[in-house]
Amino acid sequence: MAERTARFVRDVVVPVEREIVVDGRRMDDALRLELVAAAKDAGVFGPLSPVEYGGFGLDFRGQAHVLIAAGASLVGPLALHCWAPDDGNIHLLADATTPAQRERYLAPLAAGEVRSSIAMTEPAPGTGSDPSMLRTLATRVPGGWSITGAKHLITGADGAAFTICVARTDAGPTMFLVDADNPGMRVVRRMPTLDFTSAPGGHCEVAFDDCRVDDDAVLGEVGLGLEYAQARLAPSRLTFCMNWLGLAVRAHVLAAEHVLGRHSFGAPIAEHGMAQALVADNEIDLAAARALVHATAATLDLQGATSSAARHDAAIAKTFVSEAVWRVLDRAVQLFGGLGVCEDHLVARFLVEARAFRIYEGPSEVLRASVARRVFRRLG
Amino acid sequence: MAERTARFVRDVVVPVEREIVVDGRRMDDALRLELVAAAKDAGVFGPLSPVEYGGFGLDFRGQAHVLIAAGASLVGPLALHCWAPDDGNIHLLADATTPAQRERYLAPLAAGEVRSSIAMTEPAPGTGSDPSMLRTLATRVPGGWSITGAKHLITGADGAAFTICVARTDAGPTMFLVDADNPGMRVVRRMPTLDFTSAPGGHCEVAFDDCRVDDDAVLGEVGLGLEYAQARLAPSRLTFCMNWLGLAVRAHVLAAEHVLGRHSFGAPIAEHGMAQALVADNEIDLAAARALVHATAATLDLQGATSSAARHDAAIAKTFVSEAVWRVLDRAVQLFGGLGVCEDHLVARFLVEARAFRIYEGPSEVLRASVARRVFRRLG
Amino acid sequence: MAERTARFVRDVVVPVEREIVVDGRRMDDALRLELVAAAKDAGVFGPLSPVEYGGFGLDFRGQAHVLIAAGASLVGPLALHCWAPDDGNIHLLADATTPAQRERYLAPLAAGEVRSSIAMTEPAPGTGSDPSMLRTLATRVPGGWSITGAKHLITGADGAAFTICVARTDAGPTMFLVDADNPGMRVVRRMPTLDFTSAPGGHCEVAFDDCRVDDDAVLGEVGLGLEYAQARLAPSRLTFCMNWLGLAVRAHVLAAEHVLGRHSFGAPIAEHGMAQALVADNEIDLAAARALVHATAATLDLQGATSSAARHDAAIAKTFVSEAVWRVLDRAVQLFGGLGVCEDHLVARFLVEARAFRIYEGPSEVLRASVARRVFRRLG
Amino acid sequence: MAERTARFVRDVVVPVEREIVVDGRRMDDALRLELVAAAKDAGVFGPLSPVEYGGFGLDFRGQAHVLIAAGASLVGPLALHCWAPDDGNIHLLADATTPAQRERYLAPLAAGEVRSSIAMTEPAPGTGSDPSMLRTLATRVPGGWSITGAKHLITGADGAAFTICVARTDAGPTMFLVDADNPGMRVVRRMPTLDFTSAPGGHCEVAFDDCRVDDDAVLGEVGLGLEYAQARLAPSRLTFCMNWLGLAVRAHVLAAEHVLGRHSFGAPIAEHGMAQALVADNEIDLAAARALVHATAATLDLQGATSSAARHDAAIAKTFVSEAVWRVLDRAVQLFGGLGVCEDHLVARFLVEARAFRIYEGPSEVLRASVARRVFRRLG
Repeated sequence: MAERTARFVRDVVVPVEREIVVDGRRMDDALRLELVAAAKDAGVFGPLSPVEYGGFGLDFRGQAHVLIAAGASLVGPLALHCWAPDDGNIHLLADATTPAQRERYLAPLAAGEVRSSIAMTEPAPGTGSDPSMLRTLATRVPGGWSITGAKHLITGADGAAFTICVARTDAGPTMFLVDADNPGMRVVRRMPTLDFTSAPGGHCEVAFDDCRVDDDAVLGEVGLGLEYAQARLAPSRLTFCMNWLGLAVRAHVLAAEHVLGRHSFGAPIAEHGMAQALVADNEIDLAAARALVHATAATLDLQGATSSAARHDAAIAKTFVSEAVWRVLDRAVQLFGGLGVCEDHLVARFLVEARAFRIYEGPSEVLRASVARRVFRRLG
Repeated sequence: MAERTARFVRDVVVPVEREIVVDGRRMDDALRLELVAAAKDAGVFGPLSPVEYGGFGLDFRGQAHVLIAAGASLVGPLALHCWAPDDGNIHLLADATTPAQRERYLAPLAAGEVRSSIAMTEPAPGTGSDPSMLRTLATRVPGGWSITGAKHLITGADGAAFTICVARTDAGPTMFLVDADNPGMRVVRRMPTLDFTSAPGGHCEVAFDDCRVDDDAVLGEVGLGLEYAQARLAPSRLTFCMNWLGLAVRAHVLAAEHVLGRHSFGAPIAEHGMAQALVADNEIDLAAARALVHATAATLDLQGATSSAARHDAAIAKTFVSEAVWRVLDRAVQLFGGLGVCEDHLVARFLVEARAFRIYEGPSEVLRASVARRVFRRLG
Repeated sequence: MAERTARFVRDVVVPVEREIVVDGRRMDDALRLELVAAAKDAGVFGPLSPVEYGGFGLDFRGQAHVLIAAGASLVGPLALHCWAPDDGNIHLLADATTPAQRERYLAPLAAGEVRSSIAMTEPAPGTGSDPSMLRTLATRVPGGWSITGAKHLITGADGAAFTICVARTDAGPTMFLVDADNPGMRVVRRMPTLDFTSAPGGHCEVAFDDCRVDDDAVLGEVGLGLEYAQARLAPSRLTFCMNWLGLAVRAHVLAAEHVLGRHSFGAPIAEHGMAQALVADNEIDLAAARALVHATAATLDLQGATSSAARHDAAIAKTFVSEAVWRVLDRAVQLFGGLGVCEDHLVARFLVEARAFRIYEGPSEVLRASVARRVFRRLG
Repeated sequence: MAERTARFVRDVVVPVEREIVVDGRRMDDALRLELVAAAKDAGVFGPLSPVEYGGFGLDFRGQAHVLIAAGASLVGPLALHCWAPDDGNIHLLADATTPAQRERYLAPLAAGEVRSSIAMTEPAPGTGSDPSMLRTLATRVPGGWSITGAKHLITGADGAAFTICVARTDAGPTMFLVDADNPGMRVVRRMPTLDFTSAPGGHCEVAFDDCRVDDDAVLGEVGLGLEYAQARLAPSRLTFCMNWLGLAVRAHVLAAEHVLGRHSFGAPIAEHGMAQALVADNEIDLAAARALVHATAATLDLQGATSSAARHDAAIAKTFVSEAVWRVLDRAVQLFGGLGVCEDHLVARFLVEARAFRIYEGPSEVLRASVARRVFRRLG
């Protein structure tokens, strides 16, 4: 399936990617659905969607091969529907919901018919990396809840069929399923972020203002919102690693191919030591990242995605891979020389889009702190 | 004057910058002229323009203070008219032209009334970093020359009043002054580069097709084009260092201010060791870059801008400062967290615009090779 | 067996290591034989020695676990006899020798009764990283060969039972088995290298002066010396990665344990962000290195140790792991503060001994060039 | 005087250094006095000793040139007597002592006749980087004080004529001048640190056990010990930067000269891109470090060595220069290839000796925290 995916990305997705990056075609939901349909035709849709909802339900080791192949294009993961936040939301909905919720929310989501979002992050002094700072409040009202609070950097909120809102209750943080047409929820604006290619719904400011939901809107149990968020993290981080690693592999190849056949200072650039160093460092970073991704996938499969080992290894993988991907893309730009900052050659766009990867789902600094704490705990 | 510049940038330029980055105002020539007029009003226009053309004609040590202050905004150097390629072209025209050429080209350029460009770089297999690969050809025709060739990545070509075209002749590479309305020169397109804020004329593909110029269009002497290009390099590289250093200083301050007053994990972020490391590394990089810029300015002043020492020191400064600026901007983004990739806070835009600085006027790899060769020559 | 090895190293080897590093006990052959005997008693001797000679004959994936455990002490690999150059020589002798040679040389070597060396590297202008520069000459004499040339940096030559000398013949580079008592071979001196703990025979200058050997001293076929050297490389590089990775893991644990329980500036050092960053970076580097080592071991097992994939992957692993180990040891020193440069705590000694790992068996620069060439070849 | 110093180091000091590093000559006080005498003969002794005690009393900008020249050899600063801890102790004694103390302690010290030490650092849980953790106690006894406590990592204690002991009193931390023959002070042992070449008195454990001193042993005022220690810091850090920068310059030249004339893979190594990158990075790091050292010297001269600006800039310089020196020495080793880890070529020894520079007088992590705090304070 990885090979099929690679072919699909090369033949179907990459031409669309070029239209978006070079010709300014807009990445919107119509285009997303077109790509999803093509992925279904090609038999590669849904590597992580459950089998009962039309996906492949691959384990993490299986996903690794497919998602790296899908990641070769900025929009490949959208086509296969293995991209944030839907990937994590599919895991979450499959694990923690009632049959009715699964029917209503998971079925169309897993099938790629709709998109979703998850509203956790808040403007200061609300929660960013530290979940204990959650301020959005859900209070009891007859037959349900009223949610009020401000969220921002909510990926995909604009156009999502539903949003999973995390809010404080007396019993602790709780997740609520909020339909897009709920009048109490409003997408205030798309924030002007660096990346736009791969987020058809942008990264949004979302306001909840006395947003009323029924009791059956609670996802899982009241008060367990952070546990669900935690459970979502390791898979979600690993998915990102796979997707972005695929993009870095592509950039590496694009850059090396660009260099081949070019000359300067009387020799092929491929014979210049400093160009070789850039290419070799890319190859080395990618090999280490790939080995780490596969090893982490094995941990998630064998010890469970919510195990302490999984959380530790996924935090390590996210930190290493996000930084390695950044280095690889940066070197790819450098290998293109002046053309490297020209979006014609895509690597410029790749670099810009990738910057957020070192921040979202845990900035490197927060992940390093958590990794160190686990090391000390293990020894202490 | 540095303080006056700092005030001008803060009060006049920064609000415009925000309109451009956040509100999408276009950086075009009307806006550039508006900024130039404001700079003249504020008494800060033209730090490097000759005194006889209305500038301050500062030496490099003097420029350092002013240009770092100007660089605090992406469009500050445009307002003061100390930005590429005009800065280098002013030096070049002041040094190597006839009185008539100075009157016709330098006077309006130094006064900021017009912009200029210099057309050196060519698509492969033409010249990039290696000037010996120059392919654009200038051949003798009665009373002048016919120039034919393709150029690309020509900064500011679109809208420039004139372009200095570097072309091969039988006597060697030669520079020609080509007016914008010359029918043999055509701006093919603006290339879709990452930076747009600070280049009102874009980075362009330019075609010369039997482009006829008179004998008096020759800049300096026939056959000395590379010598002039070389002479232009050290000042031009140092100007960039000053401007970009100013921007990095600003990003550092923006990021540190952003962190102040914020909390996470039960403590002010300013007390988190990893945030302190980012801030300290920025402060350290900036201190080293600043010291190097001032030391290099002294070399250019005391040993001459075309001396071997000047070329060596400017290559060192360009390599170090461009990489230090990149690190500082990248850390500033990281300190902003999720908001760091959102253009609201400017540092995201700064990072993207700065990527080219490690490539143009000599990619780091080419500069390192030249630095090492000089080290070996000194010892050999 | 990895667990057995870990216990053996902890209980038996580490106390000896402390005597060597802290108390100045000399690492000589008597001590080496003592350690070997202890390893045999503990049932951990010979992970890579062939089964018929008393070893375990583990494949590379199996070796990875055991050799990382053995590497936890500087002298662990000597005890298990999986240390350079004997590890590579065992591979070489097992693959390319006659039964008689195996009996005479491999049997006692694989059993750890004797040590060996391989004499390839020469003083300039002889061969260093570039095998084509080999200058030591072997010429035909009746019934055998006469070898003349100078070698240096020959690990373990002093006290080795035999040395494999690589010399040029008319038919190409050739390997010769030279007994220690051959009067034509002389250990000129032990070179004053930084590492001494783990090399009982030092790194020596060796002179061959009309050194006479019989025809049956030829290892394998005349003219195939470089092929054998090449074949030896991937396993040898990977063995180093395993051993040194084990040492880095130990240093990481020593440093984290040292930090635990200490305070400064009003908080446990383990809560200081910059200490956490050092610990986390060690954990991350080690995880990536371990994943890469296991993945490379799989390549060697599945595609053959002399396959092009094995050579590529081993070159990548050697480059990454040698640099990661260096970073980890350096951070471990830093975590110990002032005590970090004091050999009482071992990490200072580990750092010093490890410096050569980024150079021998291919300096990082030479490996990067070969990695890049293979990338270009694959694409070209 | 810088040129005279450079000549002196080259002609007189470097041969001695080779005897120490390569031939094992011991760096003891007899040798130190021999070198001091030679420096006096050469007219270069005492760049920072006060003029009235036979030194040159240079300001920091003047010192920069001379101390960089002196640092070209590991033992050059000992010869010129501008090496820790005597450099800082001379500053301290010149500023904060009574005339009688100056006569008794400063006069012979400034003249290089004796060595001194300063006993601040203590084993855990005593003070390391955090001065508030000082545990050594000085209590009032009739006519004087009794000091009790344990110190370690006390540079030069063995053989020092006197030691400045920092101890807690009721009135706060206080400095005491303790003569070497005081029976209450005992050098327990020289600690087995990595560096030995440049510390004739080692780094020692020192025990104070009811160590009696008279009232006139108090250095400056009771309770101001930390203020004096603070005042000593900026000059002391900057001196280190100068000395070590000189060594890194020498290693850079040694490595580049080694490479010149050597070949591999069919070309001079000096033409290999990756070797050029190492050489260029050294040249760049050294240029930045040098510019920063001179700029910091100017701050100390113009704003005072105890000003907040001086402390900030010296902390920045120490952090940057100690890390740059380490990188330069490490690259120099790499450029020597296998010979780089062989002490014959000195750079191996330089690297090992330099490791402590990133730790003593403030580890990089502690300095970064203080730099960041000052940045936040400036803005807050």
